[in-house]
Amino acid sequence: MTEIKNYIEQHKDRFIDELLALLRIPSVSADPKYKDDVKKTAEFVSEKLIASGADNVEICPTKGHPIVYGEKIIDKSLPTVLVYGHYDVQPPDPLDLWTSPPFEPVIMDEKIYARGACDDKGQMYMHLKAFEIMMNNNSLPCNVKFMIEGEEEVGSDNLGEFCVSNKDRLKSDVVLISDTSMIANDVPSITVGLRGLSYVQVEVTGPNRDLHSGVYGGAVANPINVLCDMISSMKDKNNCIAIPGFYDDVLEVSAEERVEMAKAPFDVEAYKSDLNIDDTLGEKDFTVSEHTSIRPSLDVNGIWGGYIGEGAKTVLPSKAYAKISMRLVPNQSSDKITQLFEDYFNIVAPDCVKVKVTPHHGGEPVVTPTDSIAYQAASNAMEETFGKKPIPVRGGGSIPIVALFEQELGTKTVLMGFGLDSDDIHSPNEHYGIFNYLKGIETIPLFFKNFTVLSRA
Amino acid sequence: MTEIKNYIEQHKDRFIDELLALLRIPSVSADPKYKDDVKKTAEFVSEKLIASGADNVEICPTKGHPIVYGEKIIDKSLPTVLVYGHYDVQPPDPLDLWTSPPFEPVIMDEKIYARGACDDKGQMYMHLKAFEIMMNNNSLPCNVKFMIEGEEEVGSDNLGEFCVSNKDRLKSDVVLISDTSMIANDVPSITVGLRGLSYVQVEVTGPNRDLHSGVYGGAVANPINVLCDMISSMKDKNNCIAIPGFYDDVLEVSAEERVEMAKAPFDVEAYKSDLNIDDTLGEKDFTVSEHTSIRPSLDVNGIWGGYIGEGAKTVLPSKAYAKISMRLVPNQSSDKITQLFEDYFNIVAPDCVKVKVTPHHGGEPVVTPTDSIAYQAASNAMEETFGKKPIPVRGGGSIPIVALFEQELGTKTVLMGFGLDSDDIHSPNEHYGIFNYLKGIETIPLFFKNFTVLSRA
Repeated sequence: MTEIKNYIEQHKDRFIDELLALLRIPSVSADPKYKDDVKKTAEFVSEKLIASGADNVEICPTKGHPIVYGEKIIDKSLPTVLVYGHYDVQPPDPLDLWTSPPFEPVIMDEKIYARGACDDKGQMYMHLKAFEIMMNNNSLPCNVKFMIEGEEEVGSDNLGEFCVSNKDRLKSDVVLISDTSMIANDVPSITVGLRGLSYVQVEVTGPNRDLHSGVYGGAVANPINVLCDMISSMKDKNNCIAIPGFYDDVLEVSAEERVEMAKAPFDVEAYKSDLNIDDTLGEKDFTVSEHTSIRPSLDVNGIWGGYIGEGAKTVLPSKAYAKISMRLVPNQSSDKITQLFEDYFNIVAPDCVKVKVTPHHGGEPVVTPTDSIAYQAASNAMEETFGKKPIPVRGGGSIPIVALFEQELGTKTVLMGFGLDSDDIHSPNEHYGIFNYLKGIETIPLFFKNFTVLSRA
Repeated sequence: MTEIKNYIEQHKDRFIDELLALLRIPSVSADPKYKDDVKKTAEFVSEKLIASGADNVEICPTKGHPIVYGEKIIDKSLPTVLVYGHYDVQPPDPLDLWTSPPFEPVIMDEKIYARGACDDKGQMYMHLKAFEIMMNNNSLPCNVKFMIEGEEEVGSDNLGEFCVSNKDRLKSDVVLISDTSMIANDVPSITVGLRGLSYVQVEVTGPNRDLHSGVYGGAVANPINVLCDMISSMKDKNNCIAIPGFYDDVLEVSAEERVEMAKAPFDVEAYKSDLNIDDTLGEKDFTVSEHTSIRPSLDVNGIWGGYIGEGAKTVLPSKAYAKISMRLVPNQSSDKITQLFEDYFNIVAPDCVKVKVTPHHGGEPVVTPTDSIAYQAASNAMEETFGKKPIPVRGGGSIPIVALFEQELGTKTVLMGFGLDSDDIHSPNEHYGIFNYLKGIETIPLFFKNFTVLSRA
């Protein structure tokens, strides 16, 4: 423990510098124009794995962005930890809301500001540095494999095939992921559930061309107005999702479990104040914490149509578009929900327009076990470094690959993340605390130690 | 008549070339980046007025874009026609739907394609060429004044002040405007009514920053979803506008008048087929022609919020925006409707968001008399050149200055336009028929002759 702390103390400036260098490469997987940068980022990760002592490091091509693999097998009879992370990042838009450019990281108030600082470059890179420490201290207690992908933010489309084709290479006893958050720096927690995702783009077409709203307005359906009607019809008065069958498969959480969950500290006034909102808005009969964990949601992530420039233009546009995503809970299925959405969207479309639904990507909801050796190993590691036993919590986001790993590799996952909900991931001014970065690096080797010991007990 | 036709035949190539040159200057009044081009366009108009023989030509500065004035006073005892037109154009967006660049005019199938080809550069420039003919033939029968502005597409904000400050200079017996359409090239018509306009931009703010839709989705109001709800709440099941008080001042058109209007040729199947829509959508109990003439309407002209780039981004955005316009009919008041809209928008906004309404510009609805000398002069002129008596029709668009001229100058307007509804004004691939352009040039001198004769009868 002291040895780890000493190493971090000696090398922390370099640890931070290396992360800053990684953050400078704009690896936006969603936008084809960043393709070369995504590739450069994979090369950066690969080089650092090699430098830390990993063997068989390879940049594995996929139909999309490559997956970086590396491993250190010290003894086949020892357990194996498969570290998963992703080196791609969300698009930085809207750019004008960043106080410093998203790919020119700056440190302010002990936090690193950049796109990907937390999600997931910062959290992923902790594992490379923890590995470096274990290699340098000769303290790596078991085997480790790294699988760092470049398509998490666009649905990990090619990871499934990679897992299927590399079953043997990826064989492991646990998947360890740091891509989630804790309640607070003084309230450590471990994510034990994640919501699934169904993401679609919709297009509504009215007339075959943009029209003058004076000449045609009042007689011709405006696709924006119609799209608004259709989106509005997706929720009822109680803020429940109105798509028929949407809740059919939702695993209701028992009253006892809800009481247990309600014990996690949560201050709704602080929450509202942080977001500067006068009120929250969620499904009737559930709490704010429940809205974002055990209940599904539907959000328009983007909408556009007509004239959106300066000034006024009196156009009745031909088309309107929206990107809409639904967060899913156990036992909802992403494909089934996407289909229900598509059916509903077609049914509620009036005759005067044509509609199109394009599924983007999805992911299945998961609940990870708290009675496993891996959970115990993570819990004990965090208790040692934070001085407090972490609380198990369900997260609202989605890491679709957790369900995938279970299905394709038969391996359970532990989600030991060190971010905070206030890190503004996916938003302008994303940041990651230096405290969190270094604390993660300190905690990970303890997980390896605990997991090895508990596995062999 | 033959003399006019001969002149047009001899000079038509130049008449077209001059219009093409005018169309090449991108005078988009809404967008500040075109400010210099708007100025250049004013200079172009001014030069051509001088070349045609106008006196006292002046580019009059305003707080916004300048107004071009010119006149030819041949005898103070003769009547005076005030020609109004505008040299500014709508923004050309969306650019990708143009088959040729909007400011590089091309002639195809006897039509000129360019932004402003019809609205209003083409129609305005007919008056300069008709004036040139009358000056060359020594046939100008009365006095003429030109007032060509550069802010019609952004609400003519500075024209009112100009009229007030130049009451004497603008003194006239009739205002003649070509900025409207006919039913068809073989069904001439004159516009005798125009809808008014109320145009607002709205902003809905949810959380103070863009959020991750997984972490916050389900608990925090999404401003896009809320905006869709609010827009949807603006119309009821019968497609009536649901803003309280909206219809209070609407002048109901009598059953007799509606029967008379219904006699104008209109083929709803051809209308739908032209727009490639399976159905129209309008206020219950009114016909398609009535929807766009004697009834008010509400259209979203633009909407935007969240992530609108390539691919998927799971953002719960901070803000959503829309540009919304309402077309008004007699006796609705633009200011009153804007206020009703703002009140309603504030009332229907849930507590979980903040909203802002910014009025853009408005204009009053008008009905012009059909029993006036000016209408007779226009009707007879068109009957002579088209070989058919034009039908009086109410138009759906807005020319806010018609009400303004009546109020500030005490002068009635005649709307003798030569465009077609299918000219795609305000849309990609705006065009103007060469037939219409030349027919307008031929008809205008006849209006001058008829008006002078009838005025002195």
